Amino acid sequence: MNGFVYDIPVKVYFGENQLGHLGEELGKYGKRVLLTYGGGSIKRIGLYDRIIAELKKGGFEVFELSGIEPNPRIESVRRGVRICKEEKIDVLLAVGGGSTIDATKFMAAGACVEHDPWDFLNEKRAPIEKALPIVTVLTLAATGSEMDCGGVISNPETHDKIGRLAPAMLPKVSFLDPTLTYTVSPYQTACGAVDMLSHIIEVYFNMEQDLYMLDCFMEGMMKTIVKYAPIAMKEPENYEARANLMWTSSWAINGFVNGGKQQAWSCHPMEHELSAIYDITHGLGLAILTPRWMEYCLDERTVSKYVQFGVNVFGIRADKEPMAIAHESIERLSEFLFDTLQLKSTFTEVGIKAEDFPVMARKACAGGILPGFKPLEQKDIEKIFEMCL
Amino acid sequence: MNGFVYDIPVKVYFGENQLGHLGEELGKYGKRVLLTYGGGSIKRIGLYDRIIAELKKGGFEVFELSGIEPNPRIESVRRGVRICKEEKIDVLLAVGGGSTIDATKFMAAGACVEHDPWDFLNEKRAPIEKALPIVTVLTLAATGSEMDCGGVISNPETHDKIGRLAPAMLPKVSFLDPTLTYTVSPYQTACGAVDMLSHIIEVYFNMEQDLYMLDCFMEGMMKTIVKYAPIAMKEPENYEARANLMWTSSWAINGFVNGGKQQAWSCHPMEHELSAIYDITHGLGLAILTPRWMEYCLDERTVSKYVQFGVNVFGIRADKEPMAIAHESIERLSEFLFDTLQLKSTFTEVGIKAEDFPVMARKACAGGILPGFKPLEQKDIEKIFEMCL
Repeated sequence: MNGFVYDIPVKVYFGENQLGHLGEELGKYGKRVLLTYGGGSIKRIGLYDRIIAELKKGGFEVFELSGIEPNPRIESVRRGVRICKEEKIDVLLAVGGGSTIDATKFMAAGACVEHDPWDFLNEKRAPIEKALPIVTVLTLAATGSEMDCGGVISNPETHDKIGRLAPAMLPKVSFLDPTLTYTVSPYQTACGAVDMLSHIIEVYFNMEQDLYMLDCFMEGMMKTIVKYAPIAMKEPENYEARANLMWTSSWAINGFVNGGKQQAWSCHPMEHELSAIYDITHGLGLAILTPRWMEYCLDERTVSKYVQFGVNVFGIRADKEPMAIAHESIERLSEFLFDTLQLKSTFTEVGIKAEDFPVMARKACAGGILPGFKPLEQKDIEKIFEMCL
Repeated sequence: MNGFVYDIPVKVYFGENQLGHLGEELGKYGKRVLLTYGGGSIKRIGLYDRIIAELKKGGFEVFELSGIEPNPRIESVRRGVRICKEEKIDVLLAVGGGSTIDATKFMAAGACVEHDPWDFLNEKRAPIEKALPIVTVLTLAATGSEMDCGGVISNPETHDKIGRLAPAMLPKVSFLDPTLTYTVSPYQTACGAVDMLSHIIEVYFNMEQDLYMLDCFMEGMMKTIVKYAPIAMKEPENYEARANLMWTSSWAINGFVNGGKQQAWSCHPMEHELSAIYDITHGLGLAILTPRWMEYCLDERTVSKYVQFGVNVFGIRADKEPMAIAHESIERLSEFLFDTLQLKSTFTEVGIKAEDFPVMARKACAGGILPGFKPLEQKDIEKIFEMCL
């Protein structure tokens, strides 16, 4: 059991009708605001107008950067950095899902340095010591970017999709209004649910002995996702379902449940290589990979974790053989992903081709070993990819 | 389901050997430190010397206030305020359990005003807008004061024991080293466990519909207490048990699990009247009261919460009659408190006399109604007290 430092000073306004606090929070940092968003869905749901009205009321000078894409690209980040510098922006307001927030984090950091922001992500790993303050208004429960200090940026020129964490990029304030996710489609709701489920699985499937209390929390969040994702898909305006998913998205990845666990992640790095080449939805890639990865990692050493998962999350009876419970756990998870959430279950269905496996596998382990629950070499990753066909 | 604001910017160093960060954290606030502690147990375990060594290394000027009593008294707070003002203290370092930290919070607030600190607590309810910064080193897992903004102070002259919350009193940094609780006696370990269990029960037993995810977290923490308190009593140097209890103590009452629930507490206000007169250990008073209060509040309207509690915390089979499960839940809790934790189970055993019931009951409901899970008038509280005899 290792020690750790807990330090998550994000302030969260949770619930309906909290946007009235937007001006008061932004005003702590200045008057020149860069409003960032994606493809315009915030205009369709009337959120853009509400935010502009709040900003006008507060006397802010507003600059805009729109068109941030899913799997956000470094070019969008560069555009944002230019505006921050040219317009002497005081604070960034990201309105959207994880892609918008991730890109905004690197704009905020890029505004404080002279070099190209891609240098934060490529092999230079330029230090991220400062960033302009960030406030977020979340419209999709998925990545948890609203309460963590990380982001993932794609570079289509190099087929790279790279993540980076830096405390300086932690949002100061996030507004979480579950009603803003009412218009999220059943498919995107499902993909978001898988993303947060995977964030938990990456930490939970771990043979390091750590705090039982945190395992209980992770099981509670996984039960919450299993209970409410299908409800939110069937009843998009079910507040209870949307609220549970939204708060779970933040706590799945804000670092709290890690405690002192050090283990690296497995499915996320593998998935990033898929979506770097194929631009598929992150949660869909994770859904296809996760049960196969679980199957591949199951052995006598790891079986106890699968038993704990199956019994405590899916309510499987504890009085069977451990290996039988483990296999049933994987089946129950697969049923949840592919039947209940109705996600496609194979690479073939989503057009991912075997000819790309070697290069994707090599990149996922950086030509060496992908450490994690079970350390994986290129040939292991290729085998997991083959199981996904 | 109500909205809420989440804002808990306490930084926590968790684990062994983290005290090396003490100087770096205190140094953010200045060089003049008031070190506060209780009856000297921190000297017996060598903690005092370790802290003084760290402070010396950091070049701090150290002032001391010792002798803070369990159920800390306003006179100790006044002493601390005087030192803060006379010595121009920059930052307070509380080393101890909840009593030391609670008292230190009101010293920090009192140092910023001209009036008597008791005015924060008596009917004047003087505003608490500012406080000197507070850093804590925790030596007892119980009250959660290390990660919340509240405290409870006793005034023996008036037989009052009054609590108050104020964001300004939130510690900046808390050091949680489970090994510092190795010398806590089995009895105090049990009382601490009951205190944190009660903090959760006060929120969990609530008929307001709120986030399922948070109910899961509360159940996880209650399971953690039920699992590890007996282990820590039998094996005082079991790190796993001490660590789980310590981190649970903070999360039981830092406000996170409340979500949007507004309901007032019940057992704590009743217990404060007991310990205001009898000076018994807070956790012991709570242990005696809680199962009787649960019994008194059980009816057709509330039974579902007892069922949820019994099934999810004590693993009672869900296929029985709800009322039967509810009664079994109370029995299982009583067994845990009085058999497993070996706490005294009646007022008679601890010397609390029926002649004091009317005055204690009247004070607990301030002569009107004690709102909460079930609103209680003086006569209800007297009945609950009678059940404790």
